[in-house]
Amino acid sequence: MAKYVIGLDYGSDSCRAIIVDASNGNEIATSVKYYPRWKEGKYCDPRSNQYRQHPLDYIEVLEETIREALSKAPAGVAKNVVGMGFDTTGSTPVLTNEDGTPLALLPEFAENPNAMFVLWKDHTAVKEAEEINKLAKSWEIDYTAYEGGIYSSEWVWAKMLRVLREDEKIRNAAYSWVEHCDWLPGLITGHTKPETMPRSRCAAGHKAMWHESWGGLPSEEFLTSLDPLLAGFRSRLFTETCPSNVKVGYLTEEWAKRLGLTTNVAVAVGAFDCHMGAVGAEIKPGDFVRVIGTSTCDIMAVPYEEVKDKLIPGICGQVDGSVIPGLMGLEAGQSGFGDIYAWFKRLLEWPLQNILGKTNLLDAFTKEKLMEEVADAIIPELTKEAEKVPVSESTILATDWMNGRRTPDANQLLKGSITGLTLGSSAPLIFRALVEATAFGSKAIVDRFLENGIEIKQVIGIGGISLKSPFVMQTLADVLGMAIKVAKTEQACAFGAAMFAAVAAGEFEKVEEAQKAMGQGFAFTYQPNMENHALYNNLYKNYQQLGKFTEENTFPA
Amino acid sequence: MAKYVIGLDYGSDSCRAIIVDASNGNEIATSVKYYPRWKEGKYCDPRSNQYRQHPLDYIEVLEETIREALSKAPAGVAKNVVGMGFDTTGSTPVLTNEDGTPLALLPEFAENPNAMFVLWKDHTAVKEAEEINKLAKSWEIDYTAYEGGIYSSEWVWAKMLRVLREDEKIRNAAYSWVEHCDWLPGLITGHTKPETMPRSRCAAGHKAMWHESWGGLPSEEFLTSLDPLLAGFRSRLFTETCPSNVKVGYLTEEWAKRLGLTTNVAVAVGAFDCHMGAVGAEIKPGDFVRVIGTSTCDIMAVPYEEVKDKLIPGICGQVDGSVIPGLMGLEAGQSGFGDIYAWFKRLLEWPLQNILGKTNLLDAFTKEKLMEEVADAIIPELTKEAEKVPVSESTILATDWMNGRRTPDANQLLKGSITGLTLGSSAPLIFRALVEATAFGSKAIVDRFLENGIEIKQVIGIGGISLKSPFVMQTLADVLGMAIKVAKTEQACAFGAAMFAAVAAGEFEKVEEAQKAMGQGFAFTYQPNMENHALYNNLYKNYQQLGKFTEENTFPA
Repeated sequence: MAKYVIGLDYGSDSCRAIIVDASNGNEIATSVKYYPRWKEGKYCDPRSNQYRQHPLDYIEVLEETIREALSKAPAGVAKNVVGMGFDTTGSTPVLTNEDGTPLALLPEFAENPNAMFVLWKDHTAVKEAEEINKLAKSWEIDYTAYEGGIYSSEWVWAKMLRVLREDEKIRNAAYSWVEHCDWLPGLITGHTKPETMPRSRCAAGHKAMWHESWGGLPSEEFLTSLDPLLAGFRSRLFTETCPSNVKVGYLTEEWAKRLGLTTNVAVAVGAFDCHMGAVGAEIKPGDFVRVIGTSTCDIMAVPYEEVKDKLIPGICGQVDGSVIPGLMGLEAGQSGFGDIYAWFKRLLEWPLQNILGKTNLLDAFTKEKLMEEVADAIIPELTKEAEKVPVSESTILATDWMNGRRTPDANQLLKGSITGLTLGSSAPLIFRALVEATAFGSKAIVDRFLENGIEIKQVIGIGGISLKSPFVMQTLADVLGMAIKVAKTEQACAFGAAMFAAVAAGEFEKVEEAQKAMGQGFAFTYQPNMENHALYNNLYKNYQQLGKFTEENTFPA
Repeated sequence: MAKYVIGLDYGSDSCRAIIVDASNGNEIATSVKYYPRWKEGKYCDPRSNQYRQHPLDYIEVLEETIREALSKAPAGVAKNVVGMGFDTTGSTPVLTNEDGTPLALLPEFAENPNAMFVLWKDHTAVKEAEEINKLAKSWEIDYTAYEGGIYSSEWVWAKMLRVLREDEKIRNAAYSWVEHCDWLPGLITGHTKPETMPRSRCAAGHKAMWHESWGGLPSEEFLTSLDPLLAGFRSRLFTETCPSNVKVGYLTEEWAKRLGLTTNVAVAVGAFDCHMGAVGAEIKPGDFVRVIGTSTCDIMAVPYEEVKDKLIPGICGQVDGSVIPGLMGLEAGQSGFGDIYAWFKRLLEWPLQNILGKTNLLDAFTKEKLMEEVADAIIPELTKEAEKVPVSESTILATDWMNGRRTPDANQLLKGSITGLTLGSSAPLIFRALVEATAFGSKAIVDRFLENGIEIKQVIGIGGISLKSPFVMQTLADVLGMAIKVAKTEQACAFGAAMFAAVAAGEFEKVEEAQKAMGQGFAFTYQPNMENHALYNNLYKNYQQLGKFTEENTFPA
């Protein structure tokens, strides 16, 4: 009988499990479950940019998705699953105790947001990131060098320091920390000890200032200079890191039982979603792969000769083997993409939620149905109207920094702007400006790569928006002036995780072989309209001007 | 029996008639009617800022409001009405034939927007205003000098030239033009001949570059240099102008009959709404009166000694007797105020209009009721939430130029901006920023007066918003750091028109006497919170920075 692997993709809101045939990538079954506490809005405060996720959310969806996917698969598949791979959002770390247990799993911290995973988009650690940047620039080694030269508040050291500072009880209980993508593989294989749990190269190299050249994590002296509260953590973390072709171990008996699998399942080292997504979308040297969802993550994997000792300034990082072992992984991305459209949708929903929601004219059932119908139609209807507007009549200008800016040149203090507003500025016209703004943000990243001599052979789009919104994708192609191929699968990240699972299980020697055997190919290609591209090149200059202005004038927060 | 006067106030959307006792200002009856064609959105195109009103709209509401008001008044009042006064929006001119008939009243032009009144907020003549400014600066006399030094696209010469250029048929039929505030008094007293019809000093001095010192309107040479299309118009217009204490004449028999009045009704020279509103709100030297509605109009009437030969740069104008005969009238204002809140409301209504409006879940009746209920609640609910936010947490910043900027320093090309946006920027927070932006725009005007040595003794608020929105008024008081008295009457403009009607009818010799006898007093006073004022002084600097940026960077239109 065939052998199967499971790819698990932990997104911002939900987890997807896919079971695929390891020999050809055929999808056997899939299941998606939303994080229950997160869905209720628990532990979050959008006004202070606090976004936390409970470890139980992750555990519950793990069991539910795998069990549901197995229930949809033919009998016998469960027994022939040989590998599992994980991708998650990141940097999404949590403080743990000595056993590597996230503090929120201890009864005394079960409801404390500081004991939970600090989701990638949590920006509570802006001050800490600034301090890290300041210290790094004055230190003999610039530990941020391989992470684009600017440490972000979205990253692990800033976040952990923030939580340690803020919460004395947490501080006293914290022994070490773990990234979401490391925790789950460790948990289900019984490797949870912080000091020995295999750690993801991708996570450590991109977010934890880990680099081989300086012997792993930043020195104890650096960390304690940053804050004495960090004393000792370095020795309770890790020195070595692994790419995802490495196997963490096999399912423990307990977890084999809980998941309905056997103890023959090899579990690969985890990595961040976009890196695995790029692999799932068959990334090759010279491909610029964009995972386009709430935010974007842009990935390249280039031969060492192309970068050599050169550092590309202001991107998220360049980490050996973070995407494909043996190639230099380059990462960039936008802090807000689909999230910006969702913000605008939320804005337009305000009267529905706050006024229509309270009306006495309708019964509760009709009200709920109606609100759902209207809410669901907002983005499609806006799109329908916005795409009718020719570029030449696009006179509203926006920046895409409503969630800060990740690259080029991370700055989480930046905020979004909309200008060119008149009394005739309608919702579709503003929506169009927001779509253009996200495309301009993409161009800023592409230009940074090109300026630094990285050859971009083709653009590949994956993630929800790339398959769902021809309007956004065509705008992106027009703004970039480049063709964009869209991966056929909606589950490139999960597929990437499955490919690494197959390598960890020994089905393939190299991930490139797994890509060739298991890859799903491309659905279609957006060709750029070069007339629009010329117009957009002008508008892009305005985008840069507006951006520069808001960057140089930080208004009282 | 007592004598009565009728004040007619033509606003942007509706006409109000009030019948008052001339001896004490007691209100006998009132009636409001909306312009029927305007209400349907006819002849307008918000995207190109074209706003036109049909003369029949004005005639129909004249008859309806007066007849309705009379029907509510005790028997015998109609016979004892001795005066009528008019205020209207402005500059709201229309091209006429030789008889002074607006071209849209001729069958061949009945549906042609270029034959209709060009409403004050129509900005189709931006290019023409620029040309006037350019020519005026190169001419031996700067004809814009008493209108703040910058001619606006909202004003008559730009608008008439625009229409003449655009429409050959209209061009061939046009003989002269008339302002809305001049047309109605002329029409109902039989003085419609363009050359002899009494013209408002207020309208001519503020909008038509009329000034005594250069013999009335700009020279024929200036006008034909601007465009040969204007040749001959000057001689078919006027040389003299009158303040509103002057009587145009008495009702014709036809109009006495149509309105249910007698031919003993004296009709005063008309003026613009805000000028009459200031009079109705008992303006005295040193008072800064703000008519706060869709836009604002700010009026002062100061002794000649205070201004002398000095010109205050960048305001709308300073015209001898435009407010009170014998005092120098000063006018300023914001092109958008309540209109900006209405724009935001319209934005939030988009899903209601475009999605809920099409649902099959509701019957047509429920749908309409529901949409009305939600729409009506938007501003009140936004206000409720926005006023909870302390100034220190107000981190979104906007400018108030969604309809261009009238003063200080007219520039109709300017557009509005919103910055400081995050994914947590909710509708109430943005609404709050818009309210603050309109208050900052007010401060810019107040500062301009103060910088030029005009003493401001007190601020008086009239118009819809001043009575309806404590949140807006308190924000305004806090931003200005000044107390604001709010006139008791909701109909200050109509009261001002009634006061002038009483003077024209000979009931009083001077309008100051009419003010004393007929004034309605003040409802309450908003005291500024000086702690908030200090915070706002900082935010105001940001407003100025953001404004300067958008002023210096005109993005492709």
